[in-house]
Amino acid sequence: MTSKNILSIRNPRTGLDDYTIEVTTRADIQESCLKLRCNQPDWWALGLTGRINTLRAFTKELKENGDSLFRALCTDTGRRFISQIEVDSISSSVERWVKIAEGLSEISGRSSALPHISYQVKERPFALVGIISPWNFPLTLSIIDAIPALMAGAAVIIKPSEITPRFAAPLRDIINAIDGLKHVFKVVDGDGTTGAAVVDNVDAICFTGSVATGKKVCEQAAKNFIPSFLELGGKDPAIVLESADIDRATTSLLRASILNSGQACQSIERIYVARSIYDKFVASLCEKAQKVTLNAQDINKGQLGPIIFEKQSTIIAAQIQDAKDKGATILTGGKIEIYGGHWFRPTVITNVSDDMKIMQEETFGPLLPIVAFDTVNEAIELANASDYGLSAAVFASTAEEAIAVGQHIEAGGISINDAALTALMNEAEKDSFKSSGLGAPRMGASGYTRFFRKQSFMTNEADVFKIEQFDESNVKK
Amino acid sequence: MTSKNILSIRNPRTGLDDYTIEVTTRADIQESCLKLRCNQPDWWALGLTGRINTLRAFTKELKENGDSLFRALCTDTGRRFISQIEVDSISSSVERWVKIAEGLSEISGRSSALPHISYQVKERPFALVGIISPWNFPLTLSIIDAIPALMAGAAVIIKPSEITPRFAAPLRDIINAIDGLKHVFKVVDGDGTTGAAVVDNVDAICFTGSVATGKKVCEQAAKNFIPSFLELGGKDPAIVLESADIDRATTSLLRASILNSGQACQSIERIYVARSIYDKFVASLCEKAQKVTLNAQDINKGQLGPIIFEKQSTIIAAQIQDAKDKGATILTGGKIEIYGGHWFRPTVITNVSDDMKIMQEETFGPLLPIVAFDTVNEAIELANASDYGLSAAVFASTAEEAIAVGQHIEAGGISINDAALTALMNEAEKDSFKSSGLGAPRMGASGYTRFFRKQSFMTNEADVFKIEQFDESNVKK
Repeated sequence: MTSKNILSIRNPRTGLDDYTIEVTTRADIQESCLKLRCNQPDWWALGLTGRINTLRAFTKELKENGDSLFRALCTDTGRRFISQIEVDSISSSVERWVKIAEGLSEISGRSSALPHISYQVKERPFALVGIISPWNFPLTLSIIDAIPALMAGAAVIIKPSEITPRFAAPLRDIINAIDGLKHVFKVVDGDGTTGAAVVDNVDAICFTGSVATGKKVCEQAAKNFIPSFLELGGKDPAIVLESADIDRATTSLLRASILNSGQACQSIERIYVARSIYDKFVASLCEKAQKVTLNAQDINKGQLGPIIFEKQSTIIAAQIQDAKDKGATILTGGKIEIYGGHWFRPTVITNVSDDMKIMQEETFGPLLPIVAFDTVNEAIELANASDYGLSAAVFASTAEEAIAVGQHIEAGGISINDAALTALMNEAEKDSFKSSGLGAPRMGASGYTRFFRKQSFMTNEADVFKIEQFDESNVKK
Repeated sequence: MTSKNILSIRNPRTGLDDYTIEVTTRADIQESCLKLRCNQPDWWALGLTGRINTLRAFTKELKENGDSLFRALCTDTGRRFISQIEVDSISSSVERWVKIAEGLSEISGRSSALPHISYQVKERPFALVGIISPWNFPLTLSIIDAIPALMAGAAVIIKPSEITPRFAAPLRDIINAIDGLKHVFKVVDGDGTTGAAVVDNVDAICFTGSVATGKKVCEQAAKNFIPSFLELGGKDPAIVLESADIDRATTSLLRASILNSGQACQSIERIYVARSIYDKFVASLCEKAQKVTLNAQDINKGQLGPIIFEKQSTIIAAQIQDAKDKGATILTGGKIEIYGGHWFRPTVITNVSDDMKIMQEETFGPLLPIVAFDTVNEAIELANASDYGLSAAVFASTAEEAIAVGQHIEAGGISINDAALTALMNEAEKDSFKSSGLGAPRMGASGYTRFFRKQSFMTNEADVFKIEQFDESNVKK
């Protein structure tokens, strides 16, 4: 008999532990995965239309009975507006995948270099896909992989972050209300040990989170000889060229740097501005940054929620202190504000140098370090001076001018005359560069097709080759 | 100063060492990779047309001055006809990749769920692709990954097997005769230590070879956080249904099991035959197997060459002995024939049981174990009772009947009314199942597109979102 492992969960608004979860054991994960595998063939046999209908029933249930899920998510993250977006966007994401899935047809009847051999390619889903999701967008970053995997015909097991686990129970209720879905879609509570058990019991693993943990998942998946799809951190740069509309740039970059209090992989974390417009840019950004409000006193007002993970708050504060120690100037914000939980205001930083942690390490907070550049080549070099390569932004008077610069940036998703657009749209297929991820991307059609293996059937309708045809005496050389 | 590490190379026809290579050191690999990386941007800047022209110049050089390459390959492998195919097929493979590359256009101008945001996706190649190739088709299995990687715009480094390294020097001569190519395409001599150094110095690695080494490469690639494309072993089954044309089946299966003396991953290694036609099938197969000739006395005559790797010959002999010890009946062949090098004749085996090594482990030799089955379900179960899932074959009176059975086999490439067709055509995209491989497949368009990362440019032509729009007071719930 083993004793139960119970985790206390901190509330990001009060700073107090007010919830518990029981860590799912390795043995229980094994058993769950076995059951999911047993049930998957029936799910696959339903066909695409049947699976789409079931997933639509799931979104209908979510719309009608999603209140407790919404409330749990608000408690998990200490914010309401973004929680609303997380819940509401599921329905449109299902419809986006429907469009992609229905648009892909089987490759069939093609002829090859050998004209008497025809072939057709059929898609076969992985039986069981595991998902390990992070705490910054707890629901969205679970569902973004789960929906296409389920639609493809796989069974799915999700292990959400133990920092924000409250939404799991009401999500389970919604899943369990849909007969066709509950046998192939499971959400389990747990910590890193549970996540490792998931990696050891699935056929493909999706992980969203830190580079350090992502690399561990990648190695463990390699040991298990299964594919891993990793969406990791970023240190996204923005380049503001001399010709840019300063007002547009500061409005976009402020939003893209501080939305969700900066707790987003695609947050802008480094801003490079042409020296000729630097002063105006800084002034405009500071003016807008100072107007930003916190939801600390009242969750029904304000734009920035708390830092969800206490340890992250310590990291942000340490990065600010490190920058100050090395000579940076803090123009706005800059201090942790504690009302039980921890809040940061938009923190515009100048006199920044490359050796500061804010220019090297992921912040995951609302910091906006700004550096002036003299030439476009210098800006590109600075933007690329990072181990990360997730996304980037370029501002110029025209899209053409911005794209001409953006194509030299080592990152997968480049926003043009706006920033962090990958948070708003998922259509454009993009890879993660450098340490920001590995494996087929979740954006675009690839987000669906990565859950299939291709099986080809090659039919020979003519005579077959005989071994005699391969005789040495037939050599012409 | 370090002393040189010289390897003696065995001749597969004489069994005597008659060649040497110097093992390229890790330091030399690092230096070569650095140079290749420096030269890659110019190669990419050439554009697809420029790269195609250069690769066509390479195949022209190969046609005009490929004699020494052909001769070296004959010595490496102890055979002539298949060496001729290896050399001659390069030209058509280049043209196949040209067709694929020219057929893919950039995805551009698509609109998203946010109609004011358009996007375009551009392909960016990995800078440097590493290839570690095996000894069974030394040239083909180096070139099959090198050509599409080069066409995509990557630089390429190949480390061929140290069992068959003679072809590398004349291949280098051909490469070095093409000005545009020699700076981005390198072939290095070496052993496993050289291969490991390659994995540590490239941006993506292609490996063809054993499951054991493939899994090591996969883990090392994961540690380096680079993608690996692995094409590993097989234990391919064939199912011959009651309705099959017995003569056609035995002709195909004999060829597919013994071609290249069985030294092919897609060799048929297990044959399951409907009991009602079993006796006729066995008689027909034995009759044809007995007519097969060796090229042992004269390299200009005969159908089967020597077993290239001495250790493999020991494995084949041990599998035959193990089968005999456990009660199998050897109907043809069955003995190692030594004329300096080692040859095996086609070895038809009956009274086979699942616990025999010939039914579990990859043979890589011309063995044909046959098992009778009573029901189609039993045949499918037997075919799937393997850790491998590379390819398979099904014979029936119609393609439809065969495909209906084939789609239940856990393998990527299913030949219908023929066998091992993946050796003859590369158009049909297929994944490797189970332990037979991992990563995007080399067949079909994927064989080219896997060398690119996708970079998307998202352009917002309208107003940008402001942080105020994300205020908690906008929550409707």
